[in-house]
Amino acid sequence: MTLAVAGPLSALPTVEQRHRDHRCYPDGVAFMDGQYLPMSEAKISVLDWGFLHSDATYDTVHVWDGRFFRLDLHLNRFFRGMERLRMTLPYSRAEIEIILANCVSLSRHKSAYVEMICTRGVSPTFSRDPREAENRFVAFAVPFGSVASKEQLERGLHIVVSDTVRIPPQSVDPSVKNYHWLDLVKGLFDAYDNGAETALVVDISGNIAEGPGFNVFTVKEGQLRTPAQGVLLGITRQTVLDLCDELFLSAAVGDIAPNELKAADEVFITSTAGGIMPVTRIDDVEVGDGKVGALTRRLMELYWKKHADPTWSTPVTYA
Amino acid sequence: MTLAVAGPLSALPTVEQRHRDHRCYPDGVAFMDGQYLPMSEAKISVLDWGFLHSDATYDTVHVWDGRFFRLDLHLNRFFRGMERLRMTLPYSRAEIEIILANCVSLSRHKSAYVEMICTRGVSPTFSRDPREAENRFVAFAVPFGSVASKEQLERGLHIVVSDTVRIPPQSVDPSVKNYHWLDLVKGLFDAYDNGAETALVVDISGNIAEGPGFNVFTVKEGQLRTPAQGVLLGITRQTVLDLCDELFLSAAVGDIAPNELKAADEVFITSTAGGIMPVTRIDDVEVGDGKVGALTRRLMELYWKKHADPTWSTPVTYA
Repeated sequence: MTLAVAGPLSALPTVEQRHRDHRCYPDGVAFMDGQYLPMSEAKISVLDWGFLHSDATYDTVHVWDGRFFRLDLHLNRFFRGMERLRMTLPYSRAEIEIILANCVSLSRHKSAYVEMICTRGVSPTFSRDPREAENRFVAFAVPFGSVASKEQLERGLHIVVSDTVRIPPQSVDPSVKNYHWLDLVKGLFDAYDNGAETALVVDISGNIAEGPGFNVFTVKEGQLRTPAQGVLLGITRQTVLDLCDELFLSAAVGDIAPNELKAADEVFITSTAGGIMPVTRIDDVEVGDGKVGALTRRLMELYWKKHADPTWSTPVTYA
Repeated sequence: MTLAVAGPLSALPTVEQRHRDHRCYPDGVAFMDGQYLPMSEAKISVLDWGFLHSDATYDTVHVWDGRFFRLDLHLNRFFRGMERLRMTLPYSRAEIEIILANCVSLSRHKSAYVEMICTRGVSPTFSRDPREAENRFVAFAVPFGSVASKEQLERGLHIVVSDTVRIPPQSVDPSVKNYHWLDLVKGLFDAYDNGAETALVVDISGNIAEGPGFNVFTVKEGQLRTPAQGVLLGITRQTVLDLCDELFLSAAVGDIAPNELKAADEVFITSTAGGIMPVTRIDDVEVGDGKVGALTRRLMELYWKKHADPTWSTPVTYA
């Protein structure tokens, strides 16, 4: 039996009143409890159910060249997620829009990654009943980031198919955007162990599901395909389907087996963090001719072009 | 398209330097970054992967009547979890023991709930690569809490079997104690919707798995049984198995179908938060004669008696 010593009386440390945090935080502005704050202040208690039970939903929208991209779709999903988790906030949708715009404006970032979060919070009486918790809202704007680096966007990502199974819909509703990522983090380590840059995990039937923060598409003989079930219904995924409509391309949602993925002519992933990103190697197999595909390039170009289109984007007013 | 207004220039709010937190926190002491702090200061950044990806492991040990109960087993599990998640801390096991004891001693709680947490942290360069993150340690001691109230311990808990499926081992290793709880929170709401107090969720095959923070046992004709797979290997669960050895009771680990659960003579749940807690109603069915069973009572008594036994517990030195 190990001895849990508190040390002699004289050695008992002092309780200090303020945490001194020596970490670096990105340049950005957060909103909590009615205050706009630097990112270093955007913290939640370790007792918040959002941390203690990952009992939270969120959404991330990006700002590109001073304009929110498809903000409405992100807000729709955020409010739907809160409803499904039975959470409520004291802010209306219009108020949240203003808060997000203020975070961006105050941060002065012209390209930003903007996150809105609702956690279960804590009960004022420390009750274990989640119905008694005071739900909590946090929003922030930090510099835009991408899943793929500039080099990776040029030559295509190298990924692995991990045998880790994405948390199934019978356990956690994937249409509620959530922070349950240990499966995806396991996938990332599988990728690193195999000399790749990121991973796709599979669904419970062994078909391709999604990756850490992204959906996936295949192109085969001009036809696009993306998994239908058990995945986050990504806004960038939806945007690709919308772009396909506009370009009269055929796109289907349905199962993709790992061997179909590897036999595709082109493969790309989609995420708010980076948009449409080409994949040119899967496990040890080159995708197509190993170069970024023509259709992928065409979709990437149109995707970025849409960021200036007022029907797809909304300007932020900067100070 | 909704208009994301930042408002006129004069309306742009000010960025304040300090978050003002009006929430209540329990009386307790936390440890972070070498400092002992009040619970109100125990906060992590929303950018920490421990929050953003629930990329963390933890353990909770309790102190009863001034003594840690089975601290060694909790530390074993905590260190095993960190190893599986490929996390490391700048503290040795002996140092963590001292930190935990100091938190308890400084809090002055004779009965405490003591948590140790390791999160992935964040990369100093904000890289998306978890290997570059600086892992983070937080510990705290707050007043002891229980899944069951005093009244519920006397008359037995009323639970439901939810059809929510516990996140399967193919997705997240359940032997790594983790905060992936949205399935268990869903189970809780299923319980409340059905007039019950808590819930059991099932495994992917439909057998009984576990509940929010607890394992489950059945007693049938003097034989104990608890689910084998896809559940947290609880220390209190292990303690019950150890007590059964001591009492020459037969205990098996194996599948329990929902109908077997309901046909049991006695049912109880186990958790560090409350110990051994009787269940007397499942859905609309009384367990046995609807009263707390004799064997459950016998195990509860022995469980609490062991808290004074130096082979099972370690004293905390209070100032």
